[in-house]
Amino acid sequence: MAKTAVKISVPGFLAGGVSAGIKDGGHKDLGLIFSTVPARVAAMFTKNTFKAAPVLIDTERVKRGIAQAIFTNSGCANAATGKEGIADALAVSAAAARQLKIPEEHLLVCSTGMIGKRLPVKKIEAGIPRLVKSLSENGIEDAQEAMMTTDSFPKIAIRRGIVGAKDVTVCGIAKGAGMIEPNMATLLTYVMTDALVDAKALNTVFRQTIDTTFNAVSVDGCMSTNDTAIILANGLAGNNPLERAQARLQRFREMLMDVLTELARAVVKDGEGATKFITIVVEGAKSKSDARRVAYAVANSNLVKTAFFGEDPNWGRIIAAVGASGVSLEKEKVSLSVGNMTVFSQDAPAEFQFAKLKEIIRKGEIEIRISLGGGDKSYEMCTSDLSHAYVKINSAYST
Amino acid sequence: MAKTAVKISVPGFLAGGVSAGIKDGGHKDLGLIFSTVPARVAAMFTKNTFKAAPVLIDTERVKRGIAQAIFTNSGCANAATGKEGIADALAVSAAAARQLKIPEEHLLVCSTGMIGKRLPVKKIEAGIPRLVKSLSENGIEDAQEAMMTTDSFPKIAIRRGIVGAKDVTVCGIAKGAGMIEPNMATLLTYVMTDALVDAKALNTVFRQTIDTTFNAVSVDGCMSTNDTAIILANGLAGNNPLERAQARLQRFREMLMDVLTELARAVVKDGEGATKFITIVVEGAKSKSDARRVAYAVANSNLVKTAFFGEDPNWGRIIAAVGASGVSLEKEKVSLSVGNMTVFSQDAPAEFQFAKLKEIIRKGEIEIRISLGGGDKSYEMCTSDLSHAYVKINSAYST
Repeated sequence: MAKTAVKISVPGFLAGGVSAGIKDGGHKDLGLIFSTVPARVAAMFTKNTFKAAPVLIDTERVKRGIAQAIFTNSGCANAATGKEGIADALAVSAAAARQLKIPEEHLLVCSTGMIGKRLPVKKIEAGIPRLVKSLSENGIEDAQEAMMTTDSFPKIAIRRGIVGAKDVTVCGIAKGAGMIEPNMATLLTYVMTDALVDAKALNTVFRQTIDTTFNAVSVDGCMSTNDTAIILANGLAGNNPLERAQARLQRFREMLMDVLTELARAVVKDGEGATKFITIVVEGAKSKSDARRVAYAVANSNLVKTAFFGEDPNWGRIIAAVGASGVSLEKEKVSLSVGNMTVFSQDAPAEFQFAKLKEIIRKGEIEIRISLGGGDKSYEMCTSDLSHAYVKINSAYST
Repeated sequence: MAKTAVKISVPGFLAGGVSAGIKDGGHKDLGLIFSTVPARVAAMFTKNTFKAAPVLIDTERVKRGIAQAIFTNSGCANAATGKEGIADALAVSAAAARQLKIPEEHLLVCSTGMIGKRLPVKKIEAGIPRLVKSLSENGIEDAQEAMMTTDSFPKIAIRRGIVGAKDVTVCGIAKGAGMIEPNMATLLTYVMTDALVDAKALNTVFRQTIDTTFNAVSVDGCMSTNDTAIILANGLAGNNPLERAQARLQRFREMLMDVLTELARAVVKDGEGATKFITIVVEGAKSKSDARRVAYAVANSNLVKTAFFGEDPNWGRIIAAVGASGVSLEKEKVSLSVGNMTVFSQDAPAEFQFAKLKEIIRKGEIEIRISLGGGDKSYEMCTSDLSHAYVKINSAYST
């Protein structure tokens, strides 16, 4: 996470956040990321049928490959709001673009919060001049704060490195907390970089890295209507353009992967009510999709999740979830280990020290490894437990 | 539920339950159902890959079409226990059959409780003589009590009627509470009837009625290793055999459906921590499987379930779950109503009184109706909410 000693800024990017009164208590609810020059853009969105209005608008806008600003409101998702929701998002987008003096199509809009409520356009419009005025090189933390909903800590990751003989920065911010399931977590994540990256290469690299980071986490198995991941690359580092199949691209990819991994792990750790960070590795599968299906069956089992919350070494629930995944398995070949200790293999409990298992699951971070013994494909993901706090947070979200 | 005024007995069936010390506190943990004559049998089992030892044994035994006794232990599922688990179940089965003086293959064994623990064979064997001695015409309630785990109330349903000019009784008992998801709920359910039913007809009718009752409920989306539904028909009513495609079979089917519906609803109402009974109807689907998929996406959404627990009219979460189901939808045609009040249609919130919605979701029973507008297939199921009590029960189950 962001350390105060590290200066959180990216050459050519300004950011800011203010309160427009959408959320109660004067919390920041409008955030802005602005590149001083038009930037290359790549993005990924939720696969939910009921995509929020801003998602529908951004999906079209990113096709141009160029964007300069990301405007975010929290406190209202502007989802399931129909044509009026689109009109509301366009009104806000037009007002923000006008104030920034950029073409409207170069501005992306994102919303997060409650589904099914109209966007408070007047409040937002009234806040825009202050928001634009708040822009500064050091405003990334404010922009992050403005997109938080039930998040309990800020999620910012930054890497600096030499790419093509030039200093390059990659910085990402995210919000998470609930409705966290791939495609993607309820999740807004924005990456800012000053690297110059070829359009195709940027798309490919962003897709690949999101797939193994934000598309491999689950908190509650619920896919949101608003999930959005955006990268802006403004090219101000002055490097020669990074292209596909280039070794130089690899260094950039690593930095991006580091940033996204750190953010995705932070989202799981800050999952609503989470007290455990659980990594699930499924190996020996016939296909990656089989491995993924088994991993998600375990990750989304409420019985597995509550057992981990209770530090209850009830490993049989993991086996039940594997068996319920619908993946065709030879059960004699399946083995299960928790924290490097095998607890089940050859269709029977392994010999292990129960006290040691209890000790392992008392830790905050736990690895579950499931070997299917049927192939060489694998899948790794992370998830959290299911606690009283999750129920508490989510049983009174809108009221 | 069982009313004390109704005599719970079925001609030709004896039942009983005792404590063998598997569960703490002297609670009954061995139950027995015994038909004084060999009975026709039909059964359905979990589709989990890690089927418990008793499930594997019973699956073979019911192929003969004849059974006379169902022996149940609670407190240990005998699942994920390998060959030793099979040997344990066979030892118990042999001991019980010997005491009952029936062929071992005519006895079915069922277990429920914790997964991955060896069956306490000695304790069980020591309890069998007392169990057999406890058999009586009025022992069905004791047998039901003996199979309860986290159930908070007994689940017994009985119907009497005239079939083919003879008095016929259909009586079912069930245990449920957690790991409740089709194929089937963690669920043991036994039906006893004195009707004489042709073997093929019994199989068909049982399958059909289970499909629309126990295979259409979900508490927590977790499929167990031990789910078993068995019907024994001993023919002592003296009716002419009921055969497929006969009108007389219809009356029997109705009685069976009534019994299973009552039991399945009771299992959902007694779902671990449940405070709400939610019926989900999906209509206008292209296929039944599409309708089913949408229904389960909503039923198993933790965000929907916690909102209902909190009586929070956050209907947007239902729409998000529908959109995340993976079923191809024309979103403009989708509509959602809660308790007969439309809250969403034509891709936008409907005009409705929010106060009225709040009132509806405060009730203990709520119907959600989702119209997809894409066909004429439908699916109906029931589920419960997700409460603090569910987390509490399941975070400390084994310890």
